[in-house]
Amino acid sequence: MDPYMIQTNGNNHIPSVLDVHVNFGGRSSVPGKMKGRRTRWSVRPSDMSNKTFNPIRAIVDSMKVKPNPSKAMISLSIGDPTVFGNLPTDPEVTQAMKDALDSGKYNGYAPSIGYLSSREEVASYYHCPEAPLDAQDVILTSGCSQAIELCLAVLANPGQNILVPRPGFSLYRTLAESMGIEVKLYNLLPEKSWEIDLKHLESLIDEKTACLIVNNPSNPCGSVFRKSHLQKILAVAARQCVPILADEIYGDMVFSGCKYEPLATLSTDVPILSCGGLAKRWLVPGWRLGWILIHDRRDIFGNEIRDGLVKLSQRILGPCTIVQGALKSILRRTPQEFYHNTLSFLKSNADLCFGALAAISIIRAVSSGAMYLMVGIEMEHFPEFENDVDFTERLVAEQSVHCLPATCFEYPNFFRVVITVPEVMMLEACSRIQEFCEQHYHCAEGSQEECDK
Amino acid sequence: MDPYMIQTNGNNHIPSVLDVHVNFGGRSSVPGKMKGRRTRWSVRPSDMSNKTFNPIRAIVDSMKVKPNPSKAMISLSIGDPTVFGNLPTDPEVTQAMKDALDSGKYNGYAPSIGYLSSREEVASYYHCPEAPLDAQDVILTSGCSQAIELCLAVLANPGQNILVPRPGFSLYRTLAESMGIEVKLYNLLPEKSWEIDLKHLESLIDEKTACLIVNNPSNPCGSVFRKSHLQKILAVAARQCVPILADEIYGDMVFSGCKYEPLATLSTDVPILSCGGLAKRWLVPGWRLGWILIHDRRDIFGNEIRDGLVKLSQRILGPCTIVQGALKSILRRTPQEFYHNTLSFLKSNADLCFGALAAISIIRAVSSGAMYLMVGIEMEHFPEFENDVDFTERLVAEQSVHCLPATCFEYPNFFRVVITVPEVMMLEACSRIQEFCEQHYHCAEGSQEECDK
Ligand SMILES: Cc1ncc(COP(=O)(O)O)c(C=O)c1O
Ligand SMILES: Cc1ncc(COP(=O)(O)O)c(C=O)c1O
Repeated sequence: MDPYMIQTNGNNHIPSVLDVHVNFGGRSSVPGKMKGRRTRWSVRPSDMSNKTFNPIRAIVDSMKVKPNPSKAMISLSIGDPTVFGNLPTDPEVTQAMKDALDSGKYNGYAPSIGYLSSREEVASYYHCPEAPLDAQDVILTSGCSQAIELCLAVLANPGQNILVPRPGFSLYRTLAESMGIEVKLYNLLPEKSWEIDLKHLESLIDEKTACLIVNNPSNPCGSVFRKSHLQKILAVAARQCVPILADEIYGDMVFSGCKYEPLATLSTDVPILSCGGLAKRWLVPGWRLGWILIHDRRDIFGNEIRDGLVKLSQRILGPCTIVQGALKSILRRTPQEFYHNTLSFLKSNADLCFGALAAISIIRAVSSGAMYLMVGIEMEHFPEFENDVDFTERLVAEQSVHCLPATCFEYPNFFRVVITVPEVMMLEACSRIQEFCEQHYHCAEGSQEECDK
Repeated sequence: MDPYMIQTNGNNHIPSVLDVHVNFGGRSSVPGKMKGRRTRWSVRPSDMSNKTFNPIRAIVDSMKVKPNPSKAMISLSIGDPTVFGNLPTDPEVTQAMKDALDSGKYNGYAPSIGYLSSREEVASYYHCPEAPLDAQDVILTSGCSQAIELCLAVLANPGQNILVPRPGFSLYRTLAESMGIEVKLYNLLPEKSWEIDLKHLESLIDEKTACLIVNNPSNPCGSVFRKSHLQKILAVAARQCVPILADEIYGDMVFSGCKYEPLATLSTDVPILSCGGLAKRWLVPGWRLGWILIHDRRDIFGNEIRDGLVKLSQRILGPCTIVQGALKSILRRTPQEFYHNTLSFLKSNADLCFGALAAISIIRAVSSGAMYLMVGIEMEHFPEFENDVDFTERLVAEQSVHCLPATCFEYPNFFRVVITVPEVMMLEACSRIQEFCEQHYHCAEGSQEECDK
């Protein structure tokens, strides 16, 4: 009898897997005795999926508090500028997508690193004499997240380590650890506008260090590094021969009075993979269009790293072609006022928030870019709360204001405020935070004076 | 002196990395003596990128022949139905995208597994009594490629193996080997309409087998498994307790007279991850919208595999939200004639090609679905050519017709014809292939008779 013959009883019956006796290929066997085969189901998730860990999800999901039912919820926790509808993208951006659709030219597969013409547009948009770029230096990806993923995947082997800012964006750890890459956290200094503690940074570097992640402008800090600081970072990288992954997704998103310097414009020596995308500046994070800009004027990455990135891009074949097709018009036609308006809105919200919270003296650093503000909690004055998670949890329970505790960014006793929300919401949230702080503020011993003022 | 102080000479000079002497943190060191630090640049691509290998690229790129200048090139090699413009997507599909854009509701981040509403639409589209689905059984991905990537990543650890059809789609190997997962190839039988050699399949299973990939309808074979054959495959999986990854990206793309059975409708026992997407049936492969349908009525995957998939999806955050937003209308409004017209076009092209090439008797199996036809080369009659790569290379050089040698699919002495090209092109290509075969056909010894007819 053909062992692959099935007796169907009209009910699509398939022999129960637990008690089936197999007679196959001349070998007769009994469950439990059949060598090297499974006799019962046991499907377990892989180590990689077990190691894929999103600290924000873990912390937020375990915050089981309910908001105060008498106050409408205000969320200052979501790093998505589109949620409240007050920051739509520019009509030119939407029109560019429609034109790409109507052309009928962008429905097929693009090369896995993106259309040549789209990569040319990105290259010429970011090209400058200090950091020249052409199409072959550009790889389009599914969001900046995939850009970071590909860079880490090409630069680091399991067992190697990468240097990651603390506080910093949690995806670096999520990606690295899923790939068996160790994360070493270097400190940012709140009292120095969140500049990098360079000594600490350099002390962490060892022969297993595969790359240094520099995030400027910063999530969650809202800080923007000065040119001189960036040069010092580059000097460390040059001295230690460590390539840099520059997460510049908030590139150009700096407030007036402040200048954004793309890292690669300040070095001819250090090989840099700069990651960016449409998400933040063009206010379309859902569209998942990111890029890697390869800066390698001393040919240290060489063809091997470039080829490695190309090969890795072939695993899932690049970002949506309609967005790729729209890229030319998006980059060329978005009016300057659009960028300007976004930034002046963000700055005004940042100032407003800073002003309101500085009054209760728990803010440590001004925000000069990106879409965030970090607020420090003087824990000694809030003895009721164990930590920032506890603090923000109670803030939800009493005031229905949700901020991410900085523990999500591996930093204690701060919380992050997202400054993209509508102004009235920002104002209301700040006054509720003020009220909350006033209600819970206790004078620390020996600081009566401060308390009185 | 602050070791992080930089002396700029106006030229952004950073100390040369090869001859720098570092005096840092009190420790003085000389290159080559500094323990555990690099003193020269050495940035090498990771093992993962080295292991990421696309056999099609490798084979095609090494085919260095030029087409015959007196004949226009005809490419029957690209598995992209959109390249010749003869198979546009339906206007409803494009309109759905524009509506999603105009709504302004789909610019922000979606959950990493996709909008709930979009997942509901996919679930209800594929739901049937034999294989019920709801939104929580659906994960949206960046193309079917990422669907396959996530499934392999959650099911298999490095060192485990997966069972992959030969001939089969090369991405399975590309993905698996990049993750350190071994590929075991099971044979498809051309003389049995490319059914699986079930004995061979079962003989490959061992305790390290993490899953069985079943691709139906098949790329490259164009074959569609009968219900009874699918039941036998399921019986093997059930007997051996091996979960199935069903690559059903060509689901429903079967020609009249043939029925497509989603694998999950035929089993209540075997846990199945079915991968699909918009690419082929809706003729928009560039849009990168795929999905995983989780079928697990016996709760063998359980929450752990589901959670694992969710966690893995958080690495790059899902497909383009505009396409997600359009999904409801795409699935509900695409007219039946659209599907019907595509299929009757494909069938007519397949018949045409079969007819033309059967005459020179090198076709072994009819195509009944997907977008391909496999043509066998009776190598004994073509002694000039070493193998299928050689054969197809000369076909380009002499007739300017490009087909993929089946070596790209790990199968010798066949080539794959893509049947999505316009009819005139198909006809012209077939007559050139005929001419080529006639010119190179040699009677094998002892087969004079056959040769005469
Ligand atoms: C610092 C930083 N890098 C990368 C990303 C990811 O960007 P994308 O949405 O393009 O993947 C974010 C998103 O919030 C971010 O804050
Ligand atoms: C059998 C098979 N599976 C998966 C895919 C990948 O589909 P997608 O373009 O949606 O990633 C293809 C593409 O050709 C295919 O032929």
